[in-house]
Amino acid sequence: MSRICLLLCLASIFLVQQVASSSEWSYICQKGNCLKVRAEQKESAISLGACRLMCSSYASLWPKPTGKMEFKKSLIQLNVNSIDVLMPGEDTPVKRLVSAAAQRFKKNIDLLAPENGRKPGGRSLVVNLHLKKTGSDKVVYQQDETYSLNVSVHTDGRIISDIEAENFYGARNGLESLSQLIIWDDIRSEYQMLDSVYLKDGPVYPHRGILLDTARNFISTDSIKRTIEAMGASKLNIFHWHITDSQSFPYTSKSAPYLTKLGAYTPSKVYSSQDVDEIIAFGKVRGVKVLPEFDAPAHVGEGWQDTGYLACFDKKPWQKYCVEPPCGQLDPTQDGMYDVLELIYKDMIEQFDPDIFHMGGDEVHEGCWDSERKIAEWMTDNNYTLNEAGFIKLWDKFQREALKRFTKQRGYDVPIILWTSTLTDEKYLMKYLPNSTYIIQIWTTGSDKQIRVLLENGYRTILSNYDALYFDCGFGSWVADGNNWCSPYIGWQKVYENSPAKIAGKYSHLMMGAEAALWTEQSDDASVDGRIWPRAAALAERLWAEPKSTWKDAEDRFMIHRERLLKFKVNADSLQPEWCRQHQGSCSTDGILNMP
Amino acid sequence: MSRICLLLCLASIFLVQQVASSSEWSYICQKGNCLKVRAEQKESAISLGACRLMCSSYASLWPKPTGKMEFKKSLIQLNVNSIDVLMPGEDTPVKRLVSAAAQRFKKNIDLLAPENGRKPGGRSLVVNLHLKKTGSDKVVYQQDETYSLNVSVHTDGRIISDIEAENFYGARNGLESLSQLIIWDDIRSEYQMLDSVYLKDGPVYPHRGILLDTARNFISTDSIKRTIEAMGASKLNIFHWHITDSQSFPYTSKSAPYLTKLGAYTPSKVYSSQDVDEIIAFGKVRGVKVLPEFDAPAHVGEGWQDTGYLACFDKKPWQKYCVEPPCGQLDPTQDGMYDVLELIYKDMIEQFDPDIFHMGGDEVHEGCWDSERKIAEWMTDNNYTLNEAGFIKLWDKFQREALKRFTKQRGYDVPIILWTSTLTDEKYLMKYLPNSTYIIQIWTTGSDKQIRVLLENGYRTILSNYDALYFDCGFGSWVADGNNWCSPYIGWQKVYENSPAKIAGKYSHLMMGAEAALWTEQSDDASVDGRIWPRAAALAERLWAEPKSTWKDAEDRFMIHRERLLKFKVNADSLQPEWCRQHQGSCSTDGILNMP
Repeated sequence: MSRICLLLCLASIFLVQQVASSSEWSYICQKGNCLKVRAEQKESAISLGACRLMCSSYASLWPKPTGKMEFKKSLIQLNVNSIDVLMPGEDTPVKRLVSAAAQRFKKNIDLLAPENGRKPGGRSLVVNLHLKKTGSDKVVYQQDETYSLNVSVHTDGRIISDIEAENFYGARNGLESLSQLIIWDDIRSEYQMLDSVYLKDGPVYPHRGILLDTARNFISTDSIKRTIEAMGASKLNIFHWHITDSQSFPYTSKSAPYLTKLGAYTPSKVYSSQDVDEIIAFGKVRGVKVLPEFDAPAHVGEGWQDTGYLACFDKKPWQKYCVEPPCGQLDPTQDGMYDVLELIYKDMIEQFDPDIFHMGGDEVHEGCWDSERKIAEWMTDNNYTLNEAGFIKLWDKFQREALKRFTKQRGYDVPIILWTSTLTDEKYLMKYLPNSTYIIQIWTTGSDKQIRVLLENGYRTILSNYDALYFDCGFGSWVADGNNWCSPYIGWQKVYENSPAKIAGKYSHLMMGAEAALWTEQSDDASVDGRIWPRAAALAERLWAEPKSTWKDAEDRFMIHRERLLKFKVNADSLQPEWCRQHQGSCSTDGILNMP
Repeated sequence: MSRICLLLCLASIFLVQQVASSSEWSYICQKGNCLKVRAEQKESAISLGACRLMCSSYASLWPKPTGKMEFKKSLIQLNVNSIDVLMPGEDTPVKRLVSAAAQRFKKNIDLLAPENGRKPGGRSLVVNLHLKKTGSDKVVYQQDETYSLNVSVHTDGRIISDIEAENFYGARNGLESLSQLIIWDDIRSEYQMLDSVYLKDGPVYPHRGILLDTARNFISTDSIKRTIEAMGASKLNIFHWHITDSQSFPYTSKSAPYLTKLGAYTPSKVYSSQDVDEIIAFGKVRGVKVLPEFDAPAHVGEGWQDTGYLACFDKKPWQKYCVEPPCGQLDPTQDGMYDVLELIYKDMIEQFDPDIFHMGGDEVHEGCWDSERKIAEWMTDNNYTLNEAGFIKLWDKFQREALKRFTKQRGYDVPIILWTSTLTDEKYLMKYLPNSTYIIQIWTTGSDKQIRVLLENGYRTILSNYDALYFDCGFGSWVADGNNWCSPYIGWQKVYENSPAKIAGKYSHLMMGAEAALWTEQSDDASVDGRIWPRAAALAERLWAEPKSTWKDAEDRFMIHRERLLKFKVNADSLQPEWCRQHQGSCSTDGILNMP
């Protein structure tokens, strides 16, 4: 057992054992930076991980905590084979969730180290969870996620950690933070953790999400789980599942199975009911709510071929009817279409049990409906004008009926999210979309005037402004040469600086939070990790803490968090030479750049 | 056993068996495009793979062949468990290479299908290799890589393929092409291949490479092997290994081991002698020559700390002395430095047995040498002026002595590659760098006037113009916010259109070829596949075939090749929705784009 500390610490708490593997290098903490120096005595070399834990702000926690944090800069060896997570009380759904979260906690700590060469020894760790509510295990929208965490060494030698929270989801966040206070020391070949910590923490925004599109390209359940795993590790809490689109229908509708049979790319590229259940359960353990979107009336197509309810499907040239191939919109004039829609809602409600739902509603093209003679005829027959006003009226008919069918199946009102669109323009907004029902997700730029309009009219909003949160931006084009429409690539610094509070000004209480979006026209299993991570973690800290400081203050911890994600088998993209990580503070500049 | 054909084919050769898994969809060939249509009879549905093999230009070969190609549009079931690759003659190094290549051929075909659900049956395949030279197995620079390939069905029912080539490397290319004529039919659950093919093929440029930097971030041997695997599959033939740089020294120098001990990021982030041997051997089997670079006098640093031969190492602010942290250049005034250099050359020569070598030579900064008093004093003492002319003279002293030491160890002259730099400017070029010795690798833009100067003066050149071939471009910055220096991201279309022949004009005989470069400041194992692939395959076709046609004609085959790389466990990036692959010709536009 050993207890190490920064070279700067008092010699009195400097108990260092012989180490197995010697190192040419050691790290010392200077002004908050870990510097790489020649190890004077190889036996007392400090690993980068150990130095960072003691030297970095907030003990390297990501996202940084919002409440009080106190810790001693000293480490103690942990026996990874002797960790217990305890919670008093009967067997309840919550207790089963705690048990799964405890398993994950132990597994993720185990993943920090190579399998071989672990030095035996170290202290036992006992984690006591104290939950005020232990009844329902439901992931409720806007629930309490706060926790407090305490670590100390008991007189009997064991490390004791107490986590207090309102519910499982707060406690889980506490476990997440605790796991980040444990490192694998690659010089000593042993686990180390801080031995004295007090922390109180909770998020600023309740809605901290990632949108994943699984229709432009199919994303395997393994990839979805990896995404959710990293979300849990970053304290993101909403997995917004854009599950279908014009290109494919991988969702298995129990009530209208032909949609899947015709609409899936291949028979194996579907999400079975069991897949969906597993993903929801996987999310729960990680504090992640799965929020389904059924996007309509645009963004439909494949799967609906036989229904007769499709307008302008795969019509060419696509540029006339939609933004990307293939085009497709539901025909709002046909009553039977709403019956199918209701079946889909029914299936989704049964499976996701949603207390909030996403109805999409973006990029409805007048040109599409206008191109179908039977729609135009119906409109004329029913005194709808064949201009924008008429088409907006038609769209309103759709949205009104869709909401009715959804609410009928749900049995009660829940908040409905819609994307910004023509319908959310100032001239239509209040007329068609009551702010008691609708939350608006913003995908235009962060400086779009519509944001102010929404907020002034009392709408709750979610930011996904494409200039900071569309993670598909910046690659090549797929319909022409050159680069894709929202280029350039968005660096993590821009994600970090994208502040809902700053954008909302005095209306920040109406900002529910934000979502990073990965539209998958140009990603699939091969790239989804690197597109999302670690950038989504920059969003995580922005939303958890809404820090007044800038990315520069966060950079050091951010790079540590990226390494963490790699340990959890998430192929988070690399952002800098390893040299910068080993020579903290030596790479960033203040804007003066040479061109090579 | 079954023989299928396009729906368009004559019914007389249409022998279709009952299929195990039925499909809602089938594909038909229309004007060279495979269109997705409803399967009228599920039993006779044609898979996308089968359609593409018969419908696409060049039977989906990538890169496209340069000689005559003839094939019948009919497929025959292959028994994947009965494949023999035969070559007459004694056991020689070449025969052992053939044996390894045969193993790989069978393994890669095996990887095309899922492990379960393969329908038994099919014909045996016998591949006869006819090599004119079977003596040395050395990968010689600029060797003959041509081959001819014949496939036919013997009267005894076996499929016979004859491959004729000058040497192993040509024959291997034949095997590669043959493997691309075999598909996994996911409707029939069986392997299919073209049953009658004649093909003659060979590359336009001898130098078709990828540069991988393993110093800014360490790249594991597994990732390097994956890169080489995909190179083989794309008929690229030069793996340019930028093995060391200022940031780290992962190469294990037998003669100067302290360079590695001090210079590696961690003790495990090194390439042992065995690693290097394995990579070289792995390359050989795949027709890939490993070309080492030891970059000097700039781009050194870590590892050299104790020698006293380093100038401006990690000097701050780095912007004054180099292009990125940490700075570092060898001190050309110290004789002992050349002795160390010679040791490194000796080690590399022993291991790589190079018939061509890369000495780097880029981004030498006057400001770095100028900042060291002892260098300035030496220059004054030796009548070197302290201006550009003087520093160029010093650089020339370095290059002259470095070449002398290298040649001494090699024992004979070999071509030396240098990067474009101040030294390759018109005013210095002919004076300091004889064109009989030096090949110049161009990293400036494709429109740089220096290219013309080099060619007019008779220099052989290799293109790595950053505006089309630097695959690290387009991501976030790592020394500031915003995007990295050579943004935007380079789409595959631009890579494909980057023609050495067009750039060289009447001097195209001096173009040895090109290399795509991945500098790894912002990539490591997590992202190296997606940064390089499939874009490097676009370069592969450009260099193999120098086609007069554009990327539009290649797109369809390119997307098939990307799927192929995925089968070989290479995480090649996704470029378009799967919908486009299933609806060929429906996505590309002629430049008319809507903004969503």
